[in-house]
Amino acid sequence: MEDTYGNLITSLAKANDKRIVLLVMDGIGDCDNAGKGTALAIARKPNMNKLASTSALGLLVPVATAVTPGSGPGHIGLFGYDPLIYQVGRGVLSALGIEFPLTGRDVAARLNFCMIDADGKVTDRRAGRIPDEENHRVLDKIRKHLKAPAGVEVLFETVAEHRALMVLRGDGLDDNIGETDPQATGLEPLSPTRPPHDQSPTAAMADDVIGQVRNILADEPRANMILARGFAKAPSWPTFAERFRMNPAAVAGYPMYRGVATLFGMPVVARPTTAADICSEAAKAMKDHTFVFAHFKYTDKTGEDGDLAGKVKRIEEMDAALPALLAAKPDVLIITGDHSTPPSLKAHSWHPVPVLMSAPHLRGGDGESFDEVACLHGQIGTIPSKEIIPLAMAHAGKLDKFGA
Amino acid sequence: MEDTYGNLITSLAKANDKRIVLLVMDGIGDCDNAGKGTALAIARKPNMNKLASTSALGLLVPVATAVTPGSGPGHIGLFGYDPLIYQVGRGVLSALGIEFPLTGRDVAARLNFCMIDADGKVTDRRAGRIPDEENHRVLDKIRKHLKAPAGVEVLFETVAEHRALMVLRGDGLDDNIGETDPQATGLEPLSPTRPPHDQSPTAAMADDVIGQVRNILADEPRANMILARGFAKAPSWPTFAERFRMNPAAVAGYPMYRGVATLFGMPVVARPTTAADICSEAAKAMKDHTFVFAHFKYTDKTGEDGDLAGKVKRIEEMDAALPALLAAKPDVLIITGDHSTPPSLKAHSWHPVPVLMSAPHLRGGDGESFDEVACLHGQIGTIPSKEIIPLAMAHAGKLDKFGA
Repeated sequence: MEDTYGNLITSLAKANDKRIVLLVMDGIGDCDNAGKGTALAIARKPNMNKLASTSALGLLVPVATAVTPGSGPGHIGLFGYDPLIYQVGRGVLSALGIEFPLTGRDVAARLNFCMIDADGKVTDRRAGRIPDEENHRVLDKIRKHLKAPAGVEVLFETVAEHRALMVLRGDGLDDNIGETDPQATGLEPLSPTRPPHDQSPTAAMADDVIGQVRNILADEPRANMILARGFAKAPSWPTFAERFRMNPAAVAGYPMYRGVATLFGMPVVARPTTAADICSEAAKAMKDHTFVFAHFKYTDKTGEDGDLAGKVKRIEEMDAALPALLAAKPDVLIITGDHSTPPSLKAHSWHPVPVLMSAPHLRGGDGESFDEVACLHGQIGTIPSKEIIPLAMAHAGKLDKFGA
Repeated sequence: MEDTYGNLITSLAKANDKRIVLLVMDGIGDCDNAGKGTALAIARKPNMNKLASTSALGLLVPVATAVTPGSGPGHIGLFGYDPLIYQVGRGVLSALGIEFPLTGRDVAARLNFCMIDADGKVTDRRAGRIPDEENHRVLDKIRKHLKAPAGVEVLFETVAEHRALMVLRGDGLDDNIGETDPQATGLEPLSPTRPPHDQSPTAAMADDVIGQVRNILADEPRANMILARGFAKAPSWPTFAERFRMNPAAVAGYPMYRGVATLFGMPVVARPTTAADICSEAAKAMKDHTFVFAHFKYTDKTGEDGDLAGKVKRIEEMDAALPALLAAKPDVLIITGDHSTPPSLKAHSWHPVPVLMSAPHLRGGDGESFDEVACLHGQIGTIPSKEIIPLAMAHAGKLDKFGA
């Protein structure tokens, strides 16, 4: 797929000193809660509502109608990259989630420790969900005994419980490698070199490594084998600075979001987690950066927990913190989410995400409340998430005219 | 990029006698003016408002979200052609702007007269903005002494001040020719044949011509050299008549818009500039044409001048003139713009453009006022500009069913 819109915006982008702030309230969108409305509608949020009365409202579609995004695609879209074009492999997402510093020479995979029987058949795909300490111990054992195939380094990191990360690092590696998880017990692990992966030199290396690991772990009571999934090379994408001619900074307390930011060359300048700290750190970051991405996790976490009251409270915390960010006078402030996380679903959802954009050159303000219903009728309309940063750039004078 | 939508519409288009009129109020869209609303909202326009109460309203996106269109792309979109697919080079736009009759054998370029010093370095990229008379005199001198390369004609036309048009005319010319403007003083003009243009036979001809011009102008006090930009072949696109099975006419007082119309094979039948003349000429053109494009310039001009009161007045002029056009009873009347030109920005902008469509078979009328806020909530929705003529055709019975 050609990145027509992205290339168009890059061809028109021009630098200036205006400041754009993207405040992501993770999972902010909601659906109705038994007639009480959405979390945003329920929350007492005088600052956001006041801002709405002079701002543009709208809805963002992260990937496509009806499609629920993961955190990766959700942020990739908000950052102005089409998540269907800029797809990141699961191994890479796993690395981002623990902030493993991937390089362009790396192929990453998710590992599960598993248990196999004497016939080599998988009896537990999660090795009894071993505790982190056992994961650490077993990985140390592997590190100690493994002989890396010629020309590569093999790196392992604990994720949690039975989950780990494996990275092959070397020149000219490919990621045409078969997943080894048979997806059911009673079956043997699959070979990473089975067709159509039989021509991949890197698959052969993975096969060698996995074979060694099996021998190294042979006497373990539970985690006596590994299953590998989502082999993926670190992408080399146009950086945010190249794409939009802005000087970006990320303010994010959770590794996953710092990781996604670094995929686009955004330096992480602060790691706050509370609403108050996020707003004050974002305000600080505006001094030296023309674009600031600030991430607030708890609106998603409470949604995932099915905790409507908690989600409302987190929104109210952010509302109370907002004046510190407004005081720094961003030229354009976007408040939105990477996706919806309705407490009633306890999961990410496909619902379009409410967005508020405070900016010059608007067609008046859109309403007295920042919530999903008001956003449906706002002047931004319902647009793909990838278009919100270009729109902010237009309002900030950062885009040239197309054609004469 | 494939023109999927355009090809679909062409495959469904069928001729009938219904009349469609597209009245373009150039740059009509606005943003809010310090709480007073947009120019359309401020203007007293009883005729348009009355029409709105029985019409469909909506917003048009000329190119893409956040993208500010030039006049070329703005009109190309309104005419039903995707401006990202149907891109026209700057040399061609320059020719259109002075209504130079381009042929399919032409390559056009924008020229600036410039001044160079004894070392050949540019000292003034605009040759002191010489008056038109000097431009005419110097071009005559070039015409008199230039020996055209074998197989081509070389044509020059004054645009204004230091600006001119150069056209190479011949068989099999290409436009893979380097721009020669070094974009700064103190540098020599660039060669049109530098890589990746070194294999272009036409670039070699341009180089020959520019070298001769330099010698011919050697003793000029100011305009002693030319800089050439935007070399472009005249496009050969499906005509409007082929694409939509309508018999079009253009009613336009300004060369640029007549030029864009001729790119699509629309004959220019009248050249009025005032609102009253435009409406009466459009009404006349309806007699022999099933589609009439009528262009009103002053709403853009006043926007570019930052003259809100003037823009309001021009809208009111068009409103007063409208009954003469309505009396001719177009089956479908579209009133819109090619882009927005907010007086507060003194420039074209990215804001979606209000559109009113009076037509049979609507879902009722959309409101009591034709303005940006009413248009946001209209039944047309927010659609690409290229879809408004197909929509008018549907209402006029000019599109067959797709599939059985």
